[in-house]
Amino acid sequence: MFRSWWLLSAALVLAGSSMGVLREGNGRSGRNCTAHPPYLPPTAVNTTAQLVALRREMTARDIHAYIIPGTDAHLSEYIAPRDARRAWMTGFTGSAGTAVVTQTRAVLWTDSRYWEQAERQMDCNWELDRDSSINSITKWLIQEVLTGQQIGFDPFLFSIDTFQAFDAKLAPANRTLKSLANNLVDKLWVDRPQIRPDNLTCLPDSVVERTWQQKVEEIRQQMRDNPYKPTAVLLSALDETAWLFNLRGNDIPYNPFFYSYTLLTLDKIWQPPLTPRLRLLLLRLFVHNQRVPEELRAHLSVSPTCEGPLCVQLPGYEEVLPHLRAYVAQPGVRVWIGTEYTTQALYAIITPQEKLLTSNYSPVLISKAVKDEKEQTVLRDAHIRDAVAVVQLLHWLEKNVPGGQETELTAARFVEKCRSNQKFNKGSSFETISASGPNAALAHYSPTNETCRTLRVEEMYLVDSGGQYLDGTTDITRTVHWGTPTDFQREAYTRVLMGNIEISRTIFPAGTRGINIEMLGRRALWELGLNYGHGTGHGVGNYFGVHEWPVGFQSNNIPFQEGMFTSIEPGYYKENDFGIRIEDVAVVVPAKTKFGHGYLTFDTVTLVPYDRKLIKTSLLSPEQLLYLDAYYLKIRSILGPELKTQKLHDECDWLMRNTEPFLSGATAAGPNPTATTLVVMVGLLLAL
Amino acid sequence: MFRSWWLLSAALVLAGSSMGVLREGNGRSGRNCTAHPPYLPPTAVNTTAQLVALRREMTARDIHAYIIPGTDAHLSEYIAPRDARRAWMTGFTGSAGTAVVTQTRAVLWTDSRYWEQAERQMDCNWELDRDSSINSITKWLIQEVLTGQQIGFDPFLFSIDTFQAFDAKLAPANRTLKSLANNLVDKLWVDRPQIRPDNLTCLPDSVVERTWQQKVEEIRQQMRDNPYKPTAVLLSALDETAWLFNLRGNDIPYNPFFYSYTLLTLDKIWQPPLTPRLRLLLLRLFVHNQRVPEELRAHLSVSPTCEGPLCVQLPGYEEVLPHLRAYVAQPGVRVWIGTEYTTQALYAIITPQEKLLTSNYSPVLISKAVKDEKEQTVLRDAHIRDAVAVVQLLHWLEKNVPGGQETELTAARFVEKCRSNQKFNKGSSFETISASGPNAALAHYSPTNETCRTLRVEEMYLVDSGGQYLDGTTDITRTVHWGTPTDFQREAYTRVLMGNIEISRTIFPAGTRGINIEMLGRRALWELGLNYGHGTGHGVGNYFGVHEWPVGFQSNNIPFQEGMFTSIEPGYYKENDFGIRIEDVAVVVPAKTKFGHGYLTFDTVTLVPYDRKLIKTSLLSPEQLLYLDAYYLKIRSILGPELKTQKLHDECDWLMRNTEPFLSGATAAGPNPTATTLVVMVGLLLAL
Repeated sequence: MFRSWWLLSAALVLAGSSMGVLREGNGRSGRNCTAHPPYLPPTAVNTTAQLVALRREMTARDIHAYIIPGTDAHLSEYIAPRDARRAWMTGFTGSAGTAVVTQTRAVLWTDSRYWEQAERQMDCNWELDRDSSINSITKWLIQEVLTGQQIGFDPFLFSIDTFQAFDAKLAPANRTLKSLANNLVDKLWVDRPQIRPDNLTCLPDSVVERTWQQKVEEIRQQMRDNPYKPTAVLLSALDETAWLFNLRGNDIPYNPFFYSYTLLTLDKIWQPPLTPRLRLLLLRLFVHNQRVPEELRAHLSVSPTCEGPLCVQLPGYEEVLPHLRAYVAQPGVRVWIGTEYTTQALYAIITPQEKLLTSNYSPVLISKAVKDEKEQTVLRDAHIRDAVAVVQLLHWLEKNVPGGQETELTAARFVEKCRSNQKFNKGSSFETISASGPNAALAHYSPTNETCRTLRVEEMYLVDSGGQYLDGTTDITRTVHWGTPTDFQREAYTRVLMGNIEISRTIFPAGTRGINIEMLGRRALWELGLNYGHGTGHGVGNYFGVHEWPVGFQSNNIPFQEGMFTSIEPGYYKENDFGIRIEDVAVVVPAKTKFGHGYLTFDTVTLVPYDRKLIKTSLLSPEQLLYLDAYYLKIRSILGPELKTQKLHDECDWLMRNTEPFLSGATAAGPNPTATTLVVMVGLLLAL
Repeated sequence: MFRSWWLLSAALVLAGSSMGVLREGNGRSGRNCTAHPPYLPPTAVNTTAQLVALRREMTARDIHAYIIPGTDAHLSEYIAPRDARRAWMTGFTGSAGTAVVTQTRAVLWTDSRYWEQAERQMDCNWELDRDSSINSITKWLIQEVLTGQQIGFDPFLFSIDTFQAFDAKLAPANRTLKSLANNLVDKLWVDRPQIRPDNLTCLPDSVVERTWQQKVEEIRQQMRDNPYKPTAVLLSALDETAWLFNLRGNDIPYNPFFYSYTLLTLDKIWQPPLTPRLRLLLLRLFVHNQRVPEELRAHLSVSPTCEGPLCVQLPGYEEVLPHLRAYVAQPGVRVWIGTEYTTQALYAIITPQEKLLTSNYSPVLISKAVKDEKEQTVLRDAHIRDAVAVVQLLHWLEKNVPGGQETELTAARFVEKCRSNQKFNKGSSFETISASGPNAALAHYSPTNETCRTLRVEEMYLVDSGGQYLDGTTDITRTVHWGTPTDFQREAYTRVLMGNIEISRTIFPAGTRGINIEMLGRRALWELGLNYGHGTGHGVGNYFGVHEWPVGFQSNNIPFQEGMFTSIEPGYYKENDFGIRIEDVAVVVPAKTKFGHGYLTFDTVTLVPYDRKLIKTSLLSPEQLLYLDAYYLKIRSILGPELKTQKLHDECDWLMRNTEPFLSGATAAGPNPTATTLVVMVGLLLAL
């Protein structure tokens, strides 16, 4: 599954690509607010009451515009239903977008993935602005709000960087951002969902190498090593606390997280004098305490009699603000935060400047990005079981689609059921994207009863799905065709595959950033004037969110190091016709080179073959063919036995058929004689 | 000629690569401060007196450390002798490096290109720190300067970004940066060179498409279009003013610049009421007025009787500070600056915040980056004449090196003489890098009497040189071997060439940044574990500095657009052995693609063949060979006639011999039948 690509404007590439697919189903896909009377599809939400109420609240507070982002107080990408404020206000449920309301206008900004969806879900109270950059929002605000008027925002829903980006544009224009810690939408939202009551759980020992005490010690060591001598680390992103304490929850669909903050202080600075009060406050975990059962309290060493730097205090989730404030008020302290995942609300407390230490990402996120031995082993293992489920799906589709009864939804349910049969499975890692024909051209499409297409042998089909397992998170996309693809479909598919292969097989020095090599995923498409409008890959980890920052190919991702896992997922989307994406997960491993040291490459841990009939081998270089054959040999040797163990003999036969080598006689993993011969021949035929 | 590569640490790749080359010549290359007595090479400069004097000045001002950067008040890369403060203080004359002096220590930070040179030029008063990052300097400062003590700096020698980078590290550690507008070094430097008295000149009409009045109007239009409504643009970089007014000077060696600032105000905001006083101040050019002769005053419409927005005022170079201060003091004004080239001294004046508008680069630098039709035509033309000189050199070397009398210096002088015979030549665009054998492993080496090697047929030779012409600036590197290269030399050369070709022939969508594609220049090297420690290319323009920001392949370069010129220059350097660099200049042009619009590629305007015997064609892909043949065909068709016109018949024969096609029978520019056949054969031989 991909993240939106904000390096180049997605609009550049996908402009308009998400329109029109539904016309086939119900005659009209989106609203038409210029018609008389305006046309609203049945999916549009009436937002009049919300807007009237919000505007009343704004007037009472002398607020001329109110900004409603789509995130939560932890800047999560996926959010719990109770945090879907923007969706409740606008009707639009997409994962990205910002709404702004004034007394006379209401506008939603979202990117090209969601234009179609927004037009279907919003009523005519709302305008849609298709340039979703902060620049576009602030330009609009400067135009709509007069000099000196106030623009309200919830500081818990703004990252430091987002706030500063807004402020940098608005302040010079004399428009003031007014921080309102009590969210105005929450005041109106009477049936806002509750927090789930489920208890937190701790990971089984079998998937853990480092205890939470060891991880805390690692982070404290980084604090001691830091020349700016921080005395505390504040963790705001939900996966930071979950990783540190080896805990999981289920507050957010598909994401095993729980609402939490952590204030991890350094034991050392408190001595001497070490008062009992301070000693108790070295490690503060802010969660909803009623969800921490007795055995977890033992795991966390929560006890009034516990002494030392590894006793956890549980002040309660809502206590983070007063605790942080009290901590910062002490002399000689300095709080280390990662600016990408800390909200403006917490940041604003940490004053004066010398009490603050910032880095883009907290030391926890940086440490978490590199998987330890055990994490690598179990994550590879989860991908074997996950490949079983995906091979089951591909085999089942091949058998059943010609019958004409299967749909995007039945296919999605089937792969989810297959995954649920695998050891350690904890459901899907995101809503399955199961998209046939033109639906796949909407890169972010998930089937609904309304949009669901029957699967047909003459249409291409794209399935992007993933599982949560206690030992790992998976994410894989395969695109297939059960009939006779067109030449263009084969060419486009092959060039997407070439992109995937070129990244996967590239060798690069340690310290190289994903953004410096991601063009390899696009280059074969660029040669034809084709491209795709999303990112090329994101980090993936051990039973966490399917998009694990800060690893990946975007410009704010950190340099690759051995032990990082990332998806590699180029694609191509033809409006109203078809969509292609080929996504694997790979781990960064050392590369053997003739002369150098410290070089890296990728080792693909996803183990599912590509659709053979969509590959034009004539387009592939000898190196690419060698790579493919070596990959297929790996799949056969690892997944074959697993399928047999699980008694999936038909699937095992299917796998063997679909992983035959492309180069005749290629059965060894090393360089293939046929290909080598070819390369030599090419050399000999040249006028040297 | 390359810029240092600060994307990945150069130290990573070139660590130690610049040591030891001179041992052959004089037994020792650098100082040895741990020997008894310390060993100092004859090139070392005694800096004791300077340091004593500076420390006295520091004490008098309660300054505990003083920072001495290597730039000038315009943040120039190349500086005039009078601005070489760091060189005067330290003895070290390299183009990059920062010095810091405390009462007890004196340290120079520079990058790997210059370690060797610094060890040769500095005496034992100075330490060398090999991590030249700001982080490294501030870490050292925090360690050496106590809390609350002051660190002095000259705000005219710090860019805004550099100042903020220092301050961001020092302020949280309670170390204060103290701005000292009167440079302490200048006070001590009694024989500091004067400003050159030479007059400024204006470009001939034949090389100019847009008059300065048209350019001023273009920039004013950008000001009007800007939503933040700037009322003035302040230009600080020397090429900004030179470009805007079509003027040139010669204050800096190899760079046709003159000391200047410009304050360009928008005519509109002054009406009404338009007082005569204000009307006269719409366009202020701050230069040394005695160097503006009568005819230039006419060109610039400098006259007390001139009225309107296109009359230039010449308040004098030193007046920029008071004029800016007076301008900013007025109500309703806002000054637009480019942060990369504005000094902290000017920036600090523009307060409060609402009087300031910043972008990374000023609108002038952005406009200048895209060449107009005339600029493109004359710049291509300058490259033809420049290629004549380089072909003369290569032909001459081939003939004369076996005689054993030619040296790095005679070769450098020869190419400079050849250039001087070409129309419009105004000297070299930088000091010629003429480097044989191990000297070429020092990527930034220029020969001196002390280091100069005799050219020998058994050594590789690298020559990186360029010319200034009234119509364009050139920059080209060729590496050759007159005897029998080793297999490794051929392999390394070919992989450098593959890097050059892969960038040159790549097709990419408009909006792509250089940093996103520059890995193509390294990839063939990376496969063997090889790399190079400098940038892959920089902008080049029309009779300007040889490194023209903000175009190129570094992370702070702007996206490529049609009409930009950049160098493409991968390399490889083997310590104590040899160095390879292959540098061409190319212009960004539209690419024809099968399906897309707005795609771009490069068209190489440098017209000199590569050394045939160093190319292992067996390593090249069919696409690379086709590219090479098409390039050679272009050289033959453009440069051949020029050589004949100049009656350089031997050189023309040499050119024809050295541009024979690689693919037999390839004489047409289109896809070659032989290569096509090969590709088809490869396809057929595969098990499809």
